[in-house]
Amino acid sequence: MNAQDKHSPKPVSVTTGPIGRSRKLYASPAGFPEVRVPYREIAFEPSSGEPPLRIYDSSGPYGCAEFTPDLAAGLPAARPWLAAREGLENYQGRTVKPEDNGFASGEYLVPPCPAPRAIYRGTGAGPVTQLEFARAGIVTQEMVYVAHRENLCRERAFENAAARIADGESFGASIPQFVTSEFVRDEVARGRAIIPANINHPELEPVIIGRNFLVKINANIGNSAVTSSVAEEVEKMVWSIRWGADTVMDLSTGRNIHNIRDWIIRNASAPIGTVPIYQALEKVGGDATKLDWEVFKDTLIEQAEQGVDYFTIHAGVRLAHVPLTANRVTGIVSRGGSIMARWCLSRHRESFLYERFGDICDIMRRYDVSFSLGDGLRPGSNADANDAAQFAELETLGELTKVAWDKGCQVMIEGPGHVPMHKIKANMDKQLAVCGEAPFYTLGPLVTDIAPGYDHITSGIGAAMIGWFGTAMLCYVTPKEHLGLPDRDDVKTGVITYRIAAHAADLAKGHPAAIERDNAMSRARFDFRWTDQFDIGLDPDTARKYHDETMPKEAHKVA
Amino acid sequence: MNAQDKHSPKPVSVTTGPIGRSRKLYASPAGFPEVRVPYREIAFEPSSGEPPLRIYDSSGPYGCAEFTPDLAAGLPAARPWLAAREGLENYQGRTVKPEDNGFASGEYLVPPCPAPRAIYRGTGAGPVTQLEFARAGIVTQEMVYVAHRENLCRERAFENAAARIADGESFGASIPQFVTSEFVRDEVARGRAIIPANINHPELEPVIIGRNFLVKINANIGNSAVTSSVAEEVEKMVWSIRWGADTVMDLSTGRNIHNIRDWIIRNASAPIGTVPIYQALEKVGGDATKLDWEVFKDTLIEQAEQGVDYFTIHAGVRLAHVPLTANRVTGIVSRGGSIMARWCLSRHRESFLYERFGDICDIMRRYDVSFSLGDGLRPGSNADANDAAQFAELETLGELTKVAWDKGCQVMIEGPGHVPMHKIKANMDKQLAVCGEAPFYTLGPLVTDIAPGYDHITSGIGAAMIGWFGTAMLCYVTPKEHLGLPDRDDVKTGVITYRIAAHAADLAKGHPAAIERDNAMSRARFDFRWTDQFDIGLDPDTARKYHDETMPKEAHKVA
Repeated sequence: MNAQDKHSPKPVSVTTGPIGRSRKLYASPAGFPEVRVPYREIAFEPSSGEPPLRIYDSSGPYGCAEFTPDLAAGLPAARPWLAAREGLENYQGRTVKPEDNGFASGEYLVPPCPAPRAIYRGTGAGPVTQLEFARAGIVTQEMVYVAHRENLCRERAFENAAARIADGESFGASIPQFVTSEFVRDEVARGRAIIPANINHPELEPVIIGRNFLVKINANIGNSAVTSSVAEEVEKMVWSIRWGADTVMDLSTGRNIHNIRDWIIRNASAPIGTVPIYQALEKVGGDATKLDWEVFKDTLIEQAEQGVDYFTIHAGVRLAHVPLTANRVTGIVSRGGSIMARWCLSRHRESFLYERFGDICDIMRRYDVSFSLGDGLRPGSNADANDAAQFAELETLGELTKVAWDKGCQVMIEGPGHVPMHKIKANMDKQLAVCGEAPFYTLGPLVTDIAPGYDHITSGIGAAMIGWFGTAMLCYVTPKEHLGLPDRDDVKTGVITYRIAAHAADLAKGHPAAIERDNAMSRARFDFRWTDQFDIGLDPDTARKYHDETMPKEAHKVA
Repeated sequence: MNAQDKHSPKPVSVTTGPIGRSRKLYASPAGFPEVRVPYREIAFEPSSGEPPLRIYDSSGPYGCAEFTPDLAAGLPAARPWLAAREGLENYQGRTVKPEDNGFASGEYLVPPCPAPRAIYRGTGAGPVTQLEFARAGIVTQEMVYVAHRENLCRERAFENAAARIADGESFGASIPQFVTSEFVRDEVARGRAIIPANINHPELEPVIIGRNFLVKINANIGNSAVTSSVAEEVEKMVWSIRWGADTVMDLSTGRNIHNIRDWIIRNASAPIGTVPIYQALEKVGGDATKLDWEVFKDTLIEQAEQGVDYFTIHAGVRLAHVPLTANRVTGIVSRGGSIMARWCLSRHRESFLYERFGDICDIMRRYDVSFSLGDGLRPGSNADANDAAQFAELETLGELTKVAWDKGCQVMIEGPGHVPMHKIKANMDKQLAVCGEAPFYTLGPLVTDIAPGYDHITSGIGAAMIGWFGTAMLCYVTPKEHLGLPDRDDVKTGVITYRIAAHAADLAKGHPAAIERDNAMSRARFDFRWTDQFDIGLDPDTARKYHDETMPKEAHKVA
């Protein structure tokens, strides 16, 4: 781990190097030398007689032993083919305005990331989004990429795949024995999976999100006037993906939003999501009633040009839904939801996000920014779970999904929140029914409200269950939820907890290769191969440390 | 928190005092002044206008502000009525032998706890066990006690009870709106609940374990030659019940087992469980093949006289079951199970625990030691879950349950272990079917094997689910599982995680009062009453600390 200068105005260094004793490698599928798909390989003690285990890896180039980051230069392109893709035009992007960075100036202004790049948008002729390509029957390099990425850890398991799928319970999912590029194309075309991949984010290592693929997890980061520096924010992103975050949402507020986002995206191998209404609100001085279509539209274009891969859009909070929250215990807890509710109520008008939804689609389509349709009315307590407000919004999200699909946009749907165990499955079932099987992306849910300080656990329980039921991506919750801002340790704890939830879901669904890693661990346990156990685990460092606290001798580790 | 001298040969001091700003109180049901039932009361900021919240409390006298422990004197009797109970005789107990303490002598011998007491056993005339009283239609003080204890937190919720039960999903449980003593008697008589309460443990605050009551949790403690002192072991017990353990198992091995257990039981307000075969094995020098009925019988009497409330007995590991484990990934992982398997295989004989089961019952009945029928063949990995060995043993446990019931003994059944989510419910369903609804008591289960260092979480997920499905008590797992011995922080983390799991299960089952605490938290959140949020939570200290790390000002806590 490299040193961090906590007060530095720009990123100096980030955590690099292999995880445990694993090796980060890349492989290309036959016929696609430009598609370099990452994975990790864990070698075992020779006494085991076992071949190395391949596992899915999200750590980006940072996980390589030999990689030296140059944050000012950004990452090399992982999608070099974009520059040659037809239907895209290079153009002079929007000029950065003082309000994009909250009017920060002088020594308070974080400089922009100097990494050079061209800005693209769709010309309008021919497909731009992965959904449009898929519908046109075209297999993109991104589809080839994610197919190979999903398969890397299951090649060895292929002969048992049918039996393992049969042994699982996937509640009607269609998990394939082997993922072909054509299967990916078909799932994307049907809207059952998305590949969030803005054409202005060439650094991206593509990820597929859908219930017939491995369950993914998201980590949230974000600066705060109180506690963060730019260096910390970029490091939080790198740190999140190191421990297993598949996507990262930048929820920054305050000054320097634009430039901090620049540094993050240029150095991000994972898809980056944002909530554009947060920045739009900053631009109007924090007064929700002053929001309008123009400032929001400007923000969408600003962030789309930067390369944000998915936007949370709270277009489902309609004027008529707001009164449904009146008798709730915890009202509206989603920040985006409460911004839009305030807007609607103050003007007694229908939400401009809802009314302008077609225009929003037109913008997002040109850059292939995916929708994450926000659940602004999600329950903030177990008492409010599955109520009329929540489900009214979900039905609107279903309606908007079809609009976005018609416009050629990729869509996933955000879900709760706080839900007791016996009411979780109804969320999944209703989402599948009303949103046409678009991928579900939930926050937890927290299965009880009584454990502040432990909400990674209260929510990890719900996340594992809803992941099993069919949720495609799980948004992490850290131990600081409801209490304060997560630090580095909290981020790691949240990510590891959610990797547990996602993997438990993969196992229960009958993913054909998921149990390979469990079995490798179990064999290492049975043989008392301690160092192998550490390396197979999600967090080799912590496992080794805990072991050494009470059994410190090396002799106890090597059988 | 009082200071600990880590190297002291006997307990000096333990943690006392209130939890957060709550008050520990006692209440007596009408007509039973000698039955003093503990609970905690959390008062809120006056601005809230809310009455105090009553919650179930397991902390014993240690949780009282005014209590000063005298470990050498032991706790005062919480069951003074035992001394006058008919059918019990006071007698000269078994003489302590050198092997009871592993032949420790001189400065290595932990002195016995000097707390004075008489030793009792059933005379044989009339009922001794809670099961026998219940069948005879007699409501014991223990039944009155647990009924009041289960009700204390639901009195205020009574008017909503029917609706809340209807809103839950209890999978066929029969949760009452209000717990009467007669309901308790009936559940105990049917074998659906147990009150582990050795007549030689008058210090006990009775607890009921059954799926129609609040879900309970157990914490394991145990000394080790490597890292623990007596002081630490007693403190671990006190520490466990402080954070919410309903029962505590003493899994000590090595020297001084007898005397350490003495100190623990004399100072334990919670039911104490043990695995007598562990001590029997010590007595034969650690060689399982040397075990026999005589040494085991002697150990049962020794521990029954001390006041152990429940014994794990691995009588379900039959000779014919052992070959069923041959193709497992992780073989036999239960310590008791592997001891008995080795015994059976080495002699090629049926287990003496199985053959002598009636005799074991006769001994345990005389002291009302409850059975915890051990699952010696539980799976040690997801790969081995729900296999032929595990279920063959479970069927034997069902057969033994009926034998024990016929002998008048209370019984619960231990369960796994390591089980992927989609195979958990089958465990509960089969246990209910083959064990006549005797309470199920499971270890986790861990829903994946890949996260050493985080197995409180991998198992907390499974525990919440199986608790919802009907498991009556959840045995905790700490972050050190598979890696080393838990320290104080690990014990607390394990206990809090399992309180989350148990409470999540209560909520999902529709327990009529469970959501009261969640709602109190949610209202405090909505009002930004920070100190109330800390106090309502399971761990006020951690919540406050996390909050203060990023929002340190008192002004941020008091709205």
